[in-house]
Amino acid sequence: MVMNMECDVLVIGAGILGLSSAYHLKVRHPNKRVLVVERFGGPGQGNSAKSEGAFRNVFGSETNYLLADSTIDWFIHLQEDLGYDLKLAKIGYLWLFSEKQYSHHSEALEKIRSRGVDLAVFKRGELSGKIPDLVVDFEGDEEAELLGLEPVDFGVLGRKCGSIDADSLVRCYEEMFLKLGGEIRYGVEVKRLMLKPEVELGLPGEPFIWQDVHVAGAETSRGEIRAETTIVAAGVWSGRLLEPIGLDPFMRAKKRQIFTFKDPRLKGLFQVEGLNEHGVLPFTILPKAGVYFKPELTEGSVWLGCADNLGRRFGLEEDPQPEEEYYTNNIYHVLVKYFPCFRDLRPVNMWAGQYSINSLDQTPVVEALAPDLIYVGAASGSGIMKCDALGRITAALYAGEKEAELYGGKRFRVSDIGIERRNVERESFII
Amino acid sequence: MVMNMECDVLVIGAGILGLSSAYHLKVRHPNKRVLVVERFGGPGQGNSAKSEGAFRNVFGSETNYLLADSTIDWFIHLQEDLGYDLKLAKIGYLWLFSEKQYSHHSEALEKIRSRGVDLAVFKRGELSGKIPDLVVDFEGDEEAELLGLEPVDFGVLGRKCGSIDADSLVRCYEEMFLKLGGEIRYGVEVKRLMLKPEVELGLPGEPFIWQDVHVAGAETSRGEIRAETTIVAAGVWSGRLLEPIGLDPFMRAKKRQIFTFKDPRLKGLFQVEGLNEHGVLPFTILPKAGVYFKPELTEGSVWLGCADNLGRRFGLEEDPQPEEEYYTNNIYHVLVKYFPCFRDLRPVNMWAGQYSINSLDQTPVVEALAPDLIYVGAASGSGIMKCDALGRITAALYAGEKEAELYGGKRFRVSDIGIERRNVERESFII
Repeated sequence: MVMNMECDVLVIGAGILGLSSAYHLKVRHPNKRVLVVERFGGPGQGNSAKSEGAFRNVFGSETNYLLADSTIDWFIHLQEDLGYDLKLAKIGYLWLFSEKQYSHHSEALEKIRSRGVDLAVFKRGELSGKIPDLVVDFEGDEEAELLGLEPVDFGVLGRKCGSIDADSLVRCYEEMFLKLGGEIRYGVEVKRLMLKPEVELGLPGEPFIWQDVHVAGAETSRGEIRAETTIVAAGVWSGRLLEPIGLDPFMRAKKRQIFTFKDPRLKGLFQVEGLNEHGVLPFTILPKAGVYFKPELTEGSVWLGCADNLGRRFGLEEDPQPEEEYYTNNIYHVLVKYFPCFRDLRPVNMWAGQYSINSLDQTPVVEALAPDLIYVGAASGSGIMKCDALGRITAALYAGEKEAELYGGKRFRVSDIGIERRNVERESFII
Repeated sequence: MVMNMECDVLVIGAGILGLSSAYHLKVRHPNKRVLVVERFGGPGQGNSAKSEGAFRNVFGSETNYLLADSTIDWFIHLQEDLGYDLKLAKIGYLWLFSEKQYSHHSEALEKIRSRGVDLAVFKRGELSGKIPDLVVDFEGDEEAELLGLEPVDFGVLGRKCGSIDADSLVRCYEEMFLKLGGEIRYGVEVKRLMLKPEVELGLPGEPFIWQDVHVAGAETSRGEIRAETTIVAAGVWSGRLLEPIGLDPFMRAKKRQIFTFKDPRLKGLFQVEGLNEHGVLPFTILPKAGVYFKPELTEGSVWLGCADNLGRRFGLEEDPQPEEEYYTNNIYHVLVKYFPCFRDLRPVNMWAGQYSINSLDQTPVVEALAPDLIYVGAASGSGIMKCDALGRITAALYAGEKEAELYGGKRFRVSDIGIERRNVERESFII
C-alpha cells in the first residue's frame, strides 16, 4: 500500500531524539501537521531502548551540563508532577579514583562544583565502610599488578544523577506527542531524502548545479512524503540519509554492550547506606578500563557496560551482537578484583547497541544542514540524558529562534551546538 | 614474498602528504629509518596526481593562509632555486563576483588584504576590456535568468596564486626523500594497523581492556612492518585503517571531476594581458555553481572542475569515474553563458578523484590519535597547496615540539590543527 503524504514537518526516527523533537515541535505548533516515521515497529527500537539508562549532570563542558541538567529536571517533572512512570531513581554516580586520577580531575571537578552541581567526595576509609563489597587496594596482589589496577583512594559522588528506564521514556514522549495530535507511522523505512530544486522544471537530471535546492521530504518504503521541513533524527543511521546528498552527520557508529546479572551474591550492592535515598550502590565507574555498572532497582539486577574506546572499531552494524567472551575474558578480570562478589557470575542477559559518536568534541549536533532540513544527532552516548534539551533546541531552530528555552528557564544559544558557528568546550569528563 | 621489516617511522601512503611528511622527517632525523609504503605502483597515484593542481594564499582563515602561503614560497624555492620543474606558473586566481557577492565577501577580503596578501580588484568594464571572451551581464537573456546567473560586476585577483603540476610535485618530494636515504616500497598494501599492548603477554585476545596499547606498525600485503611510530597519510583511504581500531579520520570522501579542453576556439583564454606575467587568463572561478577552470600552459589546454557540494554524495569509491553528462548537461549550460568560446566543445579528456573533506572547518588535521600513531589528512581539497606546511607540522609533532617552523620562518602551533586542542577558524572563502 502506497501512502503518498504531505505534512508540515517530517521527523525521521522515533528514537529518543526524534520523539523529543516531535513533541516539542507539536507543543509549540499545535496546528502544524507533524509526522514521525520509523522503520521499526515501535518507539526507541533502534538504539534508544538499548541504552544503559543512566543520567548525570556531572560534565566538564558547560554545554553538556546545561543540556543534561535541564533534561534531568524535566525527567523528575514528568515522573513526580505528571505521573509518568519512568522508573527514575536518583541513585547517584560514583566515580572511583586513585589519588593520581583524582588529582588529574581536580580542576574539572572544581569547575563542576562551582556551577552548583551537588558533588560529594569520600575517602578510601569511608568508601570501605559504606561499600563492604569494594576492594580498595591491591598491595601484594600480583595479578592486580599485572592488570595495572589503580587503587581506590577517592570516590566522587554526583547526587543529581541516576537511573531511568529508556524504554519508558521513549514511550512517554510517544504518548505525549500523540495526545497533542502528532502522528507516527511505524514500519515505514526512509529510502532517501528528496533533494529538489526550489523551482521544479520537470527536466530529467534535476537538480542541476545552477538550481537552488532544498530538501522536500523523503522517499519511503510506503511512498513519497512531502514535507516543508524534514528533521533527520535517525541516530547511527543518519549518515545513510545524509551522505547520499553530500551532508556530513558528524558522527561515527560504535558498538557498546550491556551485560546483566542477577544473583543473591550481589545483594550487598543493594544494601549500601548513606550514598543515596534508595540505600543502594550508585551507578559506579571503576578506576580502570572504563567499566561501569548500576543496580537496576525494579529488576533487582545489575547492568554492566564498558567504555571501550581505542581498539573498538567504528562502523555501522545492522544488528550488533554482544560478545559474552568480551565479558568473561576481558571485563571480568578487572571487575572481580574491585568487586569480588561477581566471582564466577555469568551474565543472565546481554545485548548490544551503537553509540553515535562525535569524536571531535563529544557533544551533540543540532543544525540546519541544508535548506528545509534539520539534523539532530551525534549524541555521543548521552542522547537519553540530554534528550529534552535537544528536542527544545531543535524546535527553536525550526521556529527560527536564536535561543532555546530549556526546562527550568535557562536559555541556550541554538548556534552553539550547530556546525556553522559551533561553540562548545571539549568534554573533559568522559566515561 | 614476505618482507617482515622494522623501521623507526612507517609512513602509510606515498601521496603528497605522506611524501612531504616523510621528507621533512628524514631531513630532521637523517639517521632514522623512514619507510614509506604505498599500494599503488608510484607516487601520488591515489588522488594527489589527479588534482587540478592549483594553489592560492587567499583564504579567510588565518590557519589556512599560513599553511598555504608558506607552502607556495616553498614551491617557488623548489622551482627557482633548486631547479625542480614543477610547471609552476603564477597565473593568479580570479574570482568573478556580482555586486551582491562582492559585498558579501568584502569583510573577508579586507581581512585577507590586511595580512599583506596581494589582491587586486577589477570592475566590470576593466574585466571586459582585458577578457574579451567573458560575458559580464545577461540582461534580456531569458535562459540566463532561468539559470539564475549572477552578472559579473567585480573580479578579485589573487596574485600569489596559480598552477602547479601535482604529479611533478609528488615526484620532486619522492626524489628529495630518496636522496636523503629514505625508503619507499610501492605495491605494498596496508591491511591493518597493529594495535598492540605496551607489554605483550602473548595471550590470545590481546590487547585486553586493562592493557595500555599503542600502534606498533602495520600488517601489509607483503608482511608485517614493525615501527616505533606509524604515520597514516592515506588520504580518503585513511578511514579504512583508522576506523577498525576505533579512531576517527575526521573526513569523508567526495568525488571531484576534471574535464580538459583543447581547441583553437579557446585561444583567447591564452591571450589575456594585464592579469599575470604569462599573459593568460588566471585560474577563474565563475560567480555561479562553483565552476572553475585554469589554462594549463604546458599543454595549451584548459582544465575545468566544479565544486559540487550539496547533492554530491559522500562515500569512498574505489575507482571514481568522471561523468561526461555532468559536464554536458549541467556545467556546460552555466559555463557557455559566461564564456561562449566553449560553445559545442566537448572535453578531450576527463578524470575523477576524491577529496578528503573535513566538513566542520575545512581545515586539515595533524594529530597523534593514539600512542605512536600520527595522522595527517582531511585536507579538504587543498592538500597539494598546503603540503609542505603539513609535512613540517607532522615532523614537528613527531619530534615532540609545540611549534613547527614553516618555510620562511613563521611559527605554527602544532596543536592548533590537532583534535585535542584544535584552534582554527572556520573557512569563509570556499570555492
